[in-house]
Amino acid sequence: MSDALPIPEGFLLAGVHCRLKQDPQKPDLTLIMSEEPATAAGCYTENLFPAAPVVLDRQRTPGAAIRAVVINSGNANACTGERGMADAMKMAEIAAMVCAAKPEEALVMSTGIIGEYLPMDKIEQGITSAAVKLGRTAASVESAARGMLTTDTRPKVAGRTVEIDGHRVTLLGMAKGAGMIGPRMATMLGVILTDAALTPEVAQRVLGEVVDVTFNCISVEGHTSTNDTVLLLANGEAGGEPLEGDALAQFQVALNDVAEELARAIPDDGEGAQHLITIDVAGCADRPSAVTIARAVADSPLVKTAIAGADPNWGRIVSAAGYAGVPFDPAGVNLSLGGVPLFRAGAPVEFDTEAVSRSMRQQREISILLEFAEGDARARFWTSDLTAEYVRINADYHT
Amino acid sequence: MSDALPIPEGFLLAGVHCRLKQDPQKPDLTLIMSEEPATAAGCYTENLFPAAPVVLDRQRTPGAAIRAVVINSGNANACTGERGMADAMKMAEIAAMVCAAKPEEALVMSTGIIGEYLPMDKIEQGITSAAVKLGRTAASVESAARGMLTTDTRPKVAGRTVEIDGHRVTLLGMAKGAGMIGPRMATMLGVILTDAALTPEVAQRVLGEVVDVTFNCISVEGHTSTNDTVLLLANGEAGGEPLEGDALAQFQVALNDVAEELARAIPDDGEGAQHLITIDVAGCADRPSAVTIARAVADSPLVKTAIAGADPNWGRIVSAAGYAGVPFDPAGVNLSLGGVPLFRAGAPVEFDTEAVSRSMRQQREISILLEFAEGDARARFWTSDLTAEYVRINADYHT
Repeated sequence: MSDALPIPEGFLLAGVHCRLKQDPQKPDLTLIMSEEPATAAGCYTENLFPAAPVVLDRQRTPGAAIRAVVINSGNANACTGERGMADAMKMAEIAAMVCAAKPEEALVMSTGIIGEYLPMDKIEQGITSAAVKLGRTAASVESAARGMLTTDTRPKVAGRTVEIDGHRVTLLGMAKGAGMIGPRMATMLGVILTDAALTPEVAQRVLGEVVDVTFNCISVEGHTSTNDTVLLLANGEAGGEPLEGDALAQFQVALNDVAEELARAIPDDGEGAQHLITIDVAGCADRPSAVTIARAVADSPLVKTAIAGADPNWGRIVSAAGYAGVPFDPAGVNLSLGGVPLFRAGAPVEFDTEAVSRSMRQQREISILLEFAEGDARARFWTSDLTAEYVRINADYHT
Repeated sequence: MSDALPIPEGFLLAGVHCRLKQDPQKPDLTLIMSEEPATAAGCYTENLFPAAPVVLDRQRTPGAAIRAVVINSGNANACTGERGMADAMKMAEIAAMVCAAKPEEALVMSTGIIGEYLPMDKIEQGITSAAVKLGRTAASVESAARGMLTTDTRPKVAGRTVEIDGHRVTLLGMAKGAGMIGPRMATMLGVILTDAALTPEVAQRVLGEVVDVTFNCISVEGHTSTNDTVLLLANGEAGGEPLEGDALAQFQVALNDVAEELARAIPDDGEGAQHLITIDVAGCADRPSAVTIARAVADSPLVKTAIAGADPNWGRIVSAAGYAGVPFDPAGVNLSLGGVPLFRAGAPVEFDTEAVSRSMRQQREISILLEFAEGDARARFWTSDLTAEYVRINADYHT
């Protein structure tokens, strides 16, 4: 999957199995090392119960000298109080040590079950064995991407290489998603590595702007988790001065591409998902209105089950828009699904239900376009359909 | 089911099958007549796409002289434009006519598929045949209660008789729910009949207050429908002057009892529901905060699937509270489930997971208590669990 993806200069990666997950074939710990101190920025969950790693990383980002990121799956280290906080700090310290860095030069991410303490012996053993496997091969990237997964069925990796001011700049991102995906902050774990040079302030600003239109515009079931984190590490190994002006704009486009590819991959691999749904909302008075409507449609279980059933049930879509809490003129509303108009100027349109349903059954990607007559603002949102498999996964997931 | 329920004086009811539903055993049209002009109050959906019957009833309530209510299931008459509005008025007119009332003395409710026109020939035939069946037997009540059902598995009826100022006052309510149940207004169809004497203004006020803590505190999947309506008809046949003061307070208690019994019955019979979940939120700064938190927990698919799976996964409950958007001190949060403490002062509590899970499997009713340290306000909310059967029903429901 990642054969063709170049790795930014100066980064080494590894993923190992350290018995946090039961299946010995599944990596459950990822270690990323930057040979040189990297600028680091982070965006985090807005949940009032942030996990210990979120609390720790918030203190250390934006930062100018991060050397290591360690990630475990299978245990979220969330709602674990002071002991959880001490565990997160210890985990960072061990990661820093094996990378020959100072204790405070590491960041931590955890994902998995809430409310259990980290088995620190396994974590320590995992970090130690990851350290000796650190590499720059396609296999390193794949094992690192797999080490952060929970109920995801596949790793999520995206990369870009761009020429900026005569320097070859590479970006490599990886993410995990699958469940507890709600759109108030990043809603998942993600890390994007680049050899571009960025100051901490600029890194934080561009990451925030990019996350706002990518990772903050996805949902699986709308449940904002305790652990959501997206990190950006920029070690400057590509050469050149810290980016600004046009060069920075070029970089931001590439960063946005990587983030969007990863963000889409999350609902596409949402728990039990059979369809990736792209919701475009246009013609709103402002962007927050467009986002609010898109989110209401994306989070409606009735819309999501209709898509799962290949049912062009436009009544569920417009009625979800109708309860979003954003004022609009119902007579100015148009809706199309997969390019087929279903509703125009607030009234139903005749269409070939069988043909639309057949096309929904055949295609994995479903596009919904809702147009309003309130202004020029728009938003794009991605979500999964809701299947019986989602329920099976979540009714059975280990306490 | 309704054998023991007394019928308020002066009301007659009937439910008939007029081929809106395919199964000839299922009534799909309900007619209610008041022999004398009744005070009528209504609470309606806040959806920006209100169905035609909602638009019509809003114009006629509060009112002082309603004689008939006609309800059909199988077709919501929503998103049907001017023709839908004309159909709703015609439907009311026919109902008024068969009850020997003026055209404007009838109210209408519709529920079912959105975006299709009412088959007015069937509706007219249905009203005519209901008119000759109007009665005051237990069978009349049951057929009337069944005539408004869609995917509900059972009729929902509740009644009370109270002595107020020497008059015997009777209340009889019926409701339908099952799907597209979200908590911004009544989220369903309901009608409560009483022979108490109420002025229109008082009827509207007490209905609003009661709906706010009953029908507005339930959800199945949080999708606020286009048709939500609760009507209160009070024809004064019990005798006496319009209620006020202590007498009114006594009446309001009885009205609240009837509404709460019906409201609980809706998520209890939610699509695919295996558990009725009661969520109590206490210790908040104000009631809106408590309601917002309760709703976030009630609408979380992760909480609902955990309950379906008999999984005391408290992490999903506290993290749902954590993203509700209401500020609180995480260290002041307690959670118990079925009376068993799972989380105290912001940290996990040791408990017998197997025993709690076993008890969840055995009991249909699950109670969640979330306590905060912000104040004295509280709220109670009811919802369903989320099962694979919910998905099956909604992925297959006719377009």
